Amino acid sequence: MSDAFSSLPDVDAACAAQAAAHLDTLTKPPGSLGRLEPLAVQLAGIRGESFPRVSPPGVLVFAADHGIAAEGVSAFPQSVTAQMVANFVAGGAAINVFARQIGARLEVIDVGVASVVSGAGVVDEKVRAGTGNFAVEDAMTRGEAMQAIGVGQRAAERAVEAGCRCLIVGEMGIANTSASSALLAVLTGRPVAELVGRGTGIDDAGLVRKRAVIEAAIAARAPDADDPLGVLASLGGLEIAAIAGAFMEGAARRVPLLVDGFIATVAALLACRLAPELRDYLIFAHRSHEAGHGEALAALEASPLLDLELRLGEGSGAALAFALLEAACRMLSEMATFETAGISAGPA
Amino acid sequence: MSDAFSSLPDVDAACAAQAAAHLDTLTKPPGSLGRLEPLAVQLAGIRGESFPRVSPPGVLVFAADHGIAAEGVSAFPQSVTAQMVANFVAGGAAINVFARQIGARLEVIDVGVASVVSGAGVVDEKVRAGTGNFAVEDAMTRGEAMQAIGVGQRAAERAVEAGCRCLIVGEMGIANTSASSALLAVLTGRPVAELVGRGTGIDDAGLVRKRAVIEAAIAARAPDADDPLGVLASLGGLEIAAIAGAFMEGAARRVPLLVDGFIATVAALLACRLAPELRDYLIFAHRSHEAGHGEALAALEASPLLDLELRLGEGSGAALAFALLEAACRMLSEMATFETAGISAGPA
Repeated sequence: MSDAFSSLPDVDAACAAQAAAHLDTLTKPPGSLGRLEPLAVQLAGIRGESFPRVSPPGVLVFAADHGIAAEGVSAFPQSVTAQMVANFVAGGAAINVFARQIGARLEVIDVGVASVVSGAGVVDEKVRAGTGNFAVEDAMTRGEAMQAIGVGQRAAERAVEAGCRCLIVGEMGIANTSASSALLAVLTGRPVAELVGRGTGIDDAGLVRKRAVIEAAIAARAPDADDPLGVLASLGGLEIAAIAGAFMEGAARRVPLLVDGFIATVAALLACRLAPELRDYLIFAHRSHEAGHGEALAALEASPLLDLELRLGEGSGAALAFALLEAACRMLSEMATFETAGISAGPA
Repeated sequence: MSDAFSSLPDVDAACAAQAAAHLDTLTKPPGSLGRLEPLAVQLAGIRGESFPRVSPPGVLVFAADHGIAAEGVSAFPQSVTAQMVANFVAGGAAINVFARQIGARLEVIDVGVASVVSGAGVVDEKVRAGTGNFAVEDAMTRGEAMQAIGVGQRAAERAVEAGCRCLIVGEMGIANTSASSALLAVLTGRPVAELVGRGTGIDDAGLVRKRAVIEAAIAARAPDADDPLGVLASLGGLEIAAIAGAFMEGAARRVPLLVDGFIATVAALLACRLAPELRDYLIFAHRSHEAGHGEALAALEASPLLDLELRLGEGSGAALAFALLEAACRMLSEMATFETAGISAGPA
């Protein structure tokens, strides 16, 4: 499948070096703005601008259903996926609120909701009406996985062509922590029991069932970890494929990619297996409270910006972290230098 | 001195309870927005509004000099305090950049810079031209400490009367990590060696000297830990006193107080010793990279929102955390409820 993913551009080392050099001329002790400083350097490298800009951001929310929901792995019924899509369109979900706060362009994409979610405001790119139940069959075909990746690529393309300079990619899909936990277990070789958490809030008995269902399903599907697209087709989900596609297209267009919580991080890990150069374009927004997120982050050697015990998804944590990217850019472009401000720069 | 500090109002438990109840009707799994949720409840209690607002914020930057700088405890010469005040007025410092990003009203107050810092844009409330060197004499008199607290109280009053609904309080003062480390050691009884760090960036030899200077100075001054105003007068500094005053006045006016890094946290600890009810009004912005900050936070049982390895001061970390307060308020007031959105709220 390597032909399907053209190689991504390297980040611009010269712009990154210019940004790093400029940082040490600004009116502050060197390094005193902590993680904002390497963040600014990374943004310069990604954008290919020594004074990068990240506003306006674009938020993409991919929604899809999961056949595995039939196994009782979620605290909420599958119908909630479509109900939440309607809520996104009406502007009442957390991601809407946080997207408005940062002046983001928001797009909601139906890549595979089980029911019809028609209406203005939803981009209809439904590949199929939910995945198959991977406890009993493959979630989708390889062709469908490629189609769903393409949905994400097109969404990223639309956002960047509309002027977005940063992508925040979120998801909605009842039971998608189950698919993500299974993907993560296969991609990392870690035991399922360490990676499966409560998702939106199942109880103790539900957690035991969820672990057993996923362990049995992986054994039945037996995907090959060295074939990431095959793993994706086997376990799902459609929105995870779309997120991976959006990340790859965003990187191809030199846009920083703010990775949200557990599901988005698993999608990022999958995408990095398909296109390893992607890693340089990823900025990890927050450390989620969901059990497997720590392992997913470790697999990507990622240290998120925020740790606020979030576990909602939708891109909500990434939207909350965006202000730090904006601050890093403003630090570079707006702060005075020691020379222009006439300040003693060194020891007495 | 207890007469000087009128008791602060309790936070509004009814508004806090209304906010907490409303949170669980919003279209998200209960608790899934993590620390934003108790933050929203705290803000409702402080403001006495079940749908609190925190914008616009006010930034107060108090500047003063420290006689202890003569002992060679800082990487920068004392003249940098005045130079940075000029930079604040010109809009080129980090706090200016981050204050603009959040639409803050910013005020720079000279509460005790050693040299003349005249000019439009600086509020002249100089109590004295820098503190005395507490290695050889008291930093100031008790009367001067009370005057400096009053400077902070008036600054908070001006900000709130100008419409600010949240206060971000920062500082500038070469050698003020030395005064803060000394204050913290006396107020907590912890060894100086654990609390003294590199400040703006002294080297290894400087760090050894800084520790020795502070240990000897505390032994020489021998302040009584049960007399917080006496400790403040003995060790300084004027800007620390002003921050404490701003916090007390902000709480009296029911305004949430975003506490910045090491120096602001030590000022908060001092203020809580003078007026314990203050604690409920404090929101801790970030965990600084400065050595003693962890102990100062522990003394206040505080868990900051951000951990970005910042060590600049000026209020910069508090300004960066403000977006999370704004998000918490918007979550409460703008998100749809399960009922209004027609979404299944519970288990299948």
